[in-house]
Amino acid sequence: MAKIGVIGAGSWGTALALLMHNNGHQVTIWSIIGAEVEMLRTKRQHETKLPGVLLPEAIEITGNLEEAMSGKDVLILAVPSPFTRSTACMMKEFLKANQKIVNVAKGIEENTLYTLSDVIEEELPCADVAVLSGPSHAEEVGKGLPTTCVVGAHTKETAEYLQNLFMSPVFRVYTSPDMLGIELGGALKNVIALAAGTADGLGYGDNTKAALITRGIAEIGRLGIQMGAKLETFCGLTGIGDLIVTCASVHSRNRKAGWLIGQGYTMQEAMDEVKMVVEGVYSAKAAMGLAQKYQVELPIISQVNQVLFEGKSAAEAVNELMLRDKKIEHSELPWG
Amino acid sequence: MAKIGVIGAGSWGTALALLMHNNGHQVTIWSIIGAEVEMLRTKRQHETKLPGVLLPEAIEITGNLEEAMSGKDVLILAVPSPFTRSTACMMKEFLKANQKIVNVAKGIEENTLYTLSDVIEEELPCADVAVLSGPSHAEEVGKGLPTTCVVGAHTKETAEYLQNLFMSPVFRVYTSPDMLGIELGGALKNVIALAAGTADGLGYGDNTKAALITRGIAEIGRLGIQMGAKLETFCGLTGIGDLIVTCASVHSRNRKAGWLIGQGYTMQEAMDEVKMVVEGVYSAKAAMGLAQKYQVELPIISQVNQVLFEGKSAAEAVNELMLRDKKIEHSELPWG
Repeated sequence: MAKIGVIGAGSWGTALALLMHNNGHQVTIWSIIGAEVEMLRTKRQHETKLPGVLLPEAIEITGNLEEAMSGKDVLILAVPSPFTRSTACMMKEFLKANQKIVNVAKGIEENTLYTLSDVIEEELPCADVAVLSGPSHAEEVGKGLPTTCVVGAHTKETAEYLQNLFMSPVFRVYTSPDMLGIELGGALKNVIALAAGTADGLGYGDNTKAALITRGIAEIGRLGIQMGAKLETFCGLTGIGDLIVTCASVHSRNRKAGWLIGQGYTMQEAMDEVKMVVEGVYSAKAAMGLAQKYQVELPIISQVNQVLFEGKSAAEAVNELMLRDKKIEHSELPWG
Repeated sequence: MAKIGVIGAGSWGTALALLMHNNGHQVTIWSIIGAEVEMLRTKRQHETKLPGVLLPEAIEITGNLEEAMSGKDVLILAVPSPFTRSTACMMKEFLKANQKIVNVAKGIEENTLYTLSDVIEEELPCADVAVLSGPSHAEEVGKGLPTTCVVGAHTKETAEYLQNLFMSPVFRVYTSPDMLGIELGGALKNVIALAAGTADGLGYGDNTKAALITRGIAEIGRLGIQMGAKLETFCGLTGIGDLIVTCASVHSRNRKAGWLIGQGYTMQEAMDEVKMVVEGVYSAKAAMGLAQKYQVELPIISQVNQVLFEGKSAAEAVNELMLRDKKIEHSELPWG
């Protein structure tokens, strides 16, 4: 049995808290929002973000960060990516040396182009930072439906320790040394989900969508490899696996915004209609920043940017993708 | 302009004939079935397999194999995989040396474990055999919806020649030297579609399905690499791309049969209900044959075989997949 602090009480944090409790660990959840702490304490469920998933009394709920952190074997950092740096900054005061922290949010910091583990390590250089990612809607994990994820860590020891904590009959965990590949796949998939949604909105079929998903992960992979990540990771659960789940979801805001754009809405009109943050819009910008920095061609992501920020029509963007130069599928493979 | 003979007038042959005609080539379609020739000639459409897709008068329809083959720059072989060998055998008589043949069917010959290009080359050793594959429902290609495919060939020259013939504003073609990887991905995807359908039938969610798709292509890739194919191909359009399209399709017989099995039907009951050949059932056997020959572990495909042929319950099979030994996602990646 381990002592786990879950920092952040959104849908994913709540679902993982329950998973860890069911695995026999002692769990404390922290939220910065007083009303959320109150709701979780009195209703024993997150009524808006994960309704119907009950948290047993043994799971402690707190608004006190020190209480959530002190004496814990592992901290699960589950705040939305724009709050990763500020939360890590607040955690500094209470952090013990070599504290294991598993980040489960996905994103690229816009102004620095850092991955979230880079951000956490910059704020908390003494921590042992790991990541958990994969095709995992919180709603389905909350219901106990079979799910697979990958833990990425700097050492095999930390990865295997965390694998043991998270693994259950309905939550299968693999390990990987490629933290960078895991984080890039998770952050950039939303741009491709936006493109896939746009193709749906234009009335295109499954062939087009499968092409965008497959060539989309290929270009994310090209960028990732240039940055030092591994091809295998983009072909795995945290790359193509997570992208498939996002593009299949009817609930994905990115897919919905893309669909509206395919129907002729401007980016602003689509975002107004969806009424929530569309992460793919920000990731699209970050991806172009990385593409420039690492000198990699990203044809699909570049067209998404032109549609979002330069008023190009979606149909014209697809047309240009179809008519690019004739290519070899994987130019590094030798001919006999 | 090239002269093209399409051997086989099913949905895919018919859709490709129209694509080639629209690309400005002179096209002849052959069918072994007299009634099919008659229907295509008089109705100018395949009323059962590709209704609503009209074939212009300039496309010749014939029941005479010699007429379909003589003087053609390229033959597109589009017969169902069980008829590949017998059709190639009939073609021997009329074949010119170095005839370019593009096989577009998918399968593994059950008793020899040969790929279809192996079968064709054994029957027609003087031909220059290539393959075309990718996420491409014939119905969508017939309607002109944006689609991507890959041409695999023994030489770059042949691959690029065929790329030029097939490519259009709605049909983007990549080239690849990895014919073996292309053919294995296309043939074995149906086993994974069967597993994905079963998960749906059990009431599992998108997380489970994405895991089966991702880990499914990973194990097909492990087998393929052992046989001499390339990892990149399984991550590409003819591997994961085609698998995504098959698992997403509501029309897929493999997915439907899997769904019934997940609901508690036996294999025989499921096949009776679907009323058509369920290719994944045969490919599942062929895959186990290959796994034994090349000594590769295929956990998902092995469970599919146990459910199909040994009466194991689908829920138990999923349970065993989730509780296997704890694994590294890609065991060849080094830890820092």
